[in-house]
Amino acid sequence: MHADEMAEDFPVVGVESDAWEAVTRLAEQRLPGLVVTDPKGRPVSILPGSQVVRILVPGYVQDDPSLAGVLSESMADRVADKLRGKTVGQLLPDEAPELAVVNDDDTIVEVAAVMARLRCPLAAVMRGGELVGVITASRLLQLALAPPE
Amino acid sequence: MHADEMAEDFPVVGVESDAWEAVTRLAEQRLPGLVVTDPKGRPVSILPGSQVVRILVPGYVQDDPSLAGVLSESMADRVADKLRGKTVGQLLPDEAPELAVVNDDDTIVEVAAVMARLRCPLAAVMRGGELVGVITASRLLQLALAPPE
Repeated sequence: MHADEMAEDFPVVGVESDAWEAVTRLAEQRLPGLVVTDPKGRPVSILPGSQVVRILVPGYVQDDPSLAGVLSESMADRVADKLRGKTVGQLLPDEAPELAVVNDDDTIVEVAAVMARLRCPLAAVMRGGELVGVITASRLLQLALAPPE
Repeated sequence: MHADEMAEDFPVVGVESDAWEAVTRLAEQRLPGLVVTDPKGRPVSILPGSQVVRILVPGYVQDDPSLAGVLSESMADRVADKLRGKTVGQLLPDEAPELAVVNDDDTIVEVAAVMARLRCPLAAVMRGGELVGVITASRLLQLALAPPE
């Protein structure tokens, strides 16, 4: 079995696309993260949910966590304010996690080796210069333990 | 809204429980990871899928990745062999990710602040010394953007 047969659809957003739409999608679809592509459609990084939640934390709480409890303003309003006019690229953490990238003809072992090395829960599957799908760690384990007939 | 109202059920495994059962669960339920508890039921870490896939990679491939492509033995058999008699604790990476732990009366901002600081996609919610549930990053975003009436 090769990587292109293991790959599944997975939400992908462009680095120049709208930050508000990307975050809404993450929330509504309950996703752990989004694959981020450059303007040529090549996957460059992951926008992880664990980093996006940072936008829920006002600057003065980041400076002094003891102030978090006294807060009462609307979360949805603040998030909308913070994201207005921003791109996905501006949301990426300074040290954005390196995305595992594999070829369409890589095997389960090759995909597992790249994921484990980068500690990345996702691998983007490429054919030529094109993204054809994504393999999650749990999908890989599922296929390894119970390969389709 | 407080953390205990945001929390959801989430698979939890004991550090001394069977590694094979835990990995099967991760695979079958397509989970990004499991919360690992110590013998007293206190959450201590996360077993992330991106680390578990390391068991799919034979030692000689870890040493020389160019050998990954020439491999043909059964994946399921090797995984079963590797996990037999092992505990979840033995699967945890040396630098196991620190789990975000919050109190049942913490607010969305407090939970977000801890998750973002630890870059942890999950927060375990405690009441007294008891684990009452888990909040994922995407659940937190969902609640922040569209709070329940």
